[in-house]
Amino acid sequence: MKISNEELIKGIRSGNKRMLGKAITLVESRNAEHRLQAEDLLKRIMPYTGKSVRIGITGVPGAGKSTFIESFGKLLIQKGKKVAVLAIDPSSSLNKGSILGDKTRMEELAKEENAFIRPSPSSGFLGGIANTTFETMLICEAAGYDHILIETVGVGQSEVLVADISDVFLFLKIIGGGDELQGIKRGVMEMVDIIFINKVNPENKNKAKSTKQELLRALYFLHEKEKNWKVPVLLGSALQNEGIDVVNEKISEFIELKKQSGRFEEIRKQQAEKRFEYWVQHYIIQATTQENTMQNSLVNHKKNVSELRANPSSEAKLFVEKLLGKSIS
Amino acid sequence: MKISNEELIKGIRSGNKRMLGKAITLVESRNAEHRLQAEDLLKRIMPYTGKSVRIGITGVPGAGKSTFIESFGKLLIQKGKKVAVLAIDPSSSLNKGSILGDKTRMEELAKEENAFIRPSPSSGFLGGIANTTFETMLICEAAGYDHILIETVGVGQSEVLVADISDVFLFLKIIGGGDELQGIKRGVMEMVDIIFINKVNPENKNKAKSTKQELLRALYFLHEKEKNWKVPVLLGSALQNEGIDVVNEKISEFIELKKQSGRFEEIRKQQAEKRFEYWVQHYIIQATTQENTMQNSLVNHKKNVSELRANPSSEAKLFVEKLLGKSIS
Repeated sequence: MKISNEELIKGIRSGNKRMLGKAITLVESRNAEHRLQAEDLLKRIMPYTGKSVRIGITGVPGAGKSTFIESFGKLLIQKGKKVAVLAIDPSSSLNKGSILGDKTRMEELAKEENAFIRPSPSSGFLGGIANTTFETMLICEAAGYDHILIETVGVGQSEVLVADISDVFLFLKIIGGGDELQGIKRGVMEMVDIIFINKVNPENKNKAKSTKQELLRALYFLHEKEKNWKVPVLLGSALQNEGIDVVNEKISEFIELKKQSGRFEEIRKQQAEKRFEYWVQHYIIQATTQENTMQNSLVNHKKNVSELRANPSSEAKLFVEKLLGKSIS
Repeated sequence: MKISNEELIKGIRSGNKRMLGKAITLVESRNAEHRLQAEDLLKRIMPYTGKSVRIGITGVPGAGKSTFIESFGKLLIQKGKKVAVLAIDPSSSLNKGSILGDKTRMEELAKEENAFIRPSPSSGFLGGIANTTFETMLICEAAGYDHILIETVGVGQSEVLVADISDVFLFLKIIGGGDELQGIKRGVMEMVDIIFINKVNPENKNKAKSTKQELLRALYFLHEKEKNWKVPVLLGSALQNEGIDVVNEKISEFIELKKQSGRFEEIRKQQAEKRFEYWVQHYIIQATTQENTMQNSLVNHKKNVSELRANPSSEAKLFVEKLLGKSIS
């Protein structure tokens, strides 16, 4: 990268979006030299991070996530906030938007001085093993964004990734029970802090209300995620700008509750530790793939196991001994 | 261990329960020499493993797990099967039984020639990091047990551990909706293949039926775990031996379905790979704890992260470089 970290940090801190974009590209890069610079950059911006509200947003395709983010983002900006929008996986609408060149998505929000929209990288670096949304978020925080919206479409493990880096998890629902509700991915309901039923209008209001009842019933069966917090099911229309303010109030209420109970910091710390473990694994795999012999060894040991030829613990031990270059007892 | 692996294998294969117990103790041991012997033993018994039906059983305390296992185990034995009962965590009733010297638990089952009951070790080896239930299961399979019942009381991550090593996951419920249902741990409903409402009698039958309806409603909101399988909610009484045969039929049906779709083998392979990854992590941690400097290093890096002083990826990289003794890019 031709730009030094000094320049990047100066640019980020002064609100230069081009520099912010470059810093994120650096962090996303799989190039070894870039990784070195990225680690240095992250180290140096740490004092400026952690001050935002990190909001995870999920919902099936068609739930109106882009419209919601546009509407919600504009509300926050009206209130004097700076908003960054990130997407955690390549299949999210943010990314589809950028791939298809669909510039109409979040068109108005994108024009705002105090908004920053960043599609996710088209492929995760190192072949999709690593995901750098957490690090991108840190950079946006250093740039003074006080609300980070992290969007996911809910493919694979992406909700877990979002839950692992956000303070509040928002679930966008469309009206309709029955088969449509079946589409709720396993485990998602358990991660949710606030539900917003979108696209409600006078014609479908009754149907929306029964969807709400069904959701409340489903929530009733789940253990509470945060003490003293009953997950609210809100109704509204992002397109008509209806009910978005209530979502914002509920988010503030939830964050306040977590801060007072100490859970806010506690969970942030847990998330950081989890992130550390994630990177430890990543770097061990990285070290492995740097050497062909280690790479082959991993493939072979795993194959012995998955073909049920060898027992997992013995194969694991052989592999770790090769990796560390010493015998372990 | 004074007994050689030759003797152990001979004993296990010939149905000697004392030898079986000793082999399990060996696998559970944290002693370095024992670990070496255990890995060799596991390697050698591999050809005899994999032929059982692995049944995970969970339920809150008071759901009647011991009574159910006694009743179900006896049914299987009547059908000419050999049954091994294992417990995955120290807080399970099996272990409580052994700690309290409560010999009345599964008293009749324990007397059966074709039953083997093994409490979980009072503490996981290496300070609870590792769990050897999977390996114990392999040894029981080598000893010819064709049904392995793995009990958990559902504390912490134990259900996930059970789900990760079993072919079918059974959930024992007691009658009662409302607040009691709140006790269902987050995520458990998503892992379940069959639900059995226990302790049903003529007086509470209506209440049992409404509990069943509530459970069916909750299940309705969840994505199906196995294609073409609607989780059945069965009613019965383990004490009165009522409905146990239906549980057995449903288990057979479920296993048959998975075998026909190829999911049975597919999941077994995935489980083996997961187990391999588990042991890779374990052995890396093991290698770390063998050296004080590495141990201190891990603690310090993790502390920097959890106190939000340093960014996770940089700290992870520093740690992995120390661990592997080389720089990684």
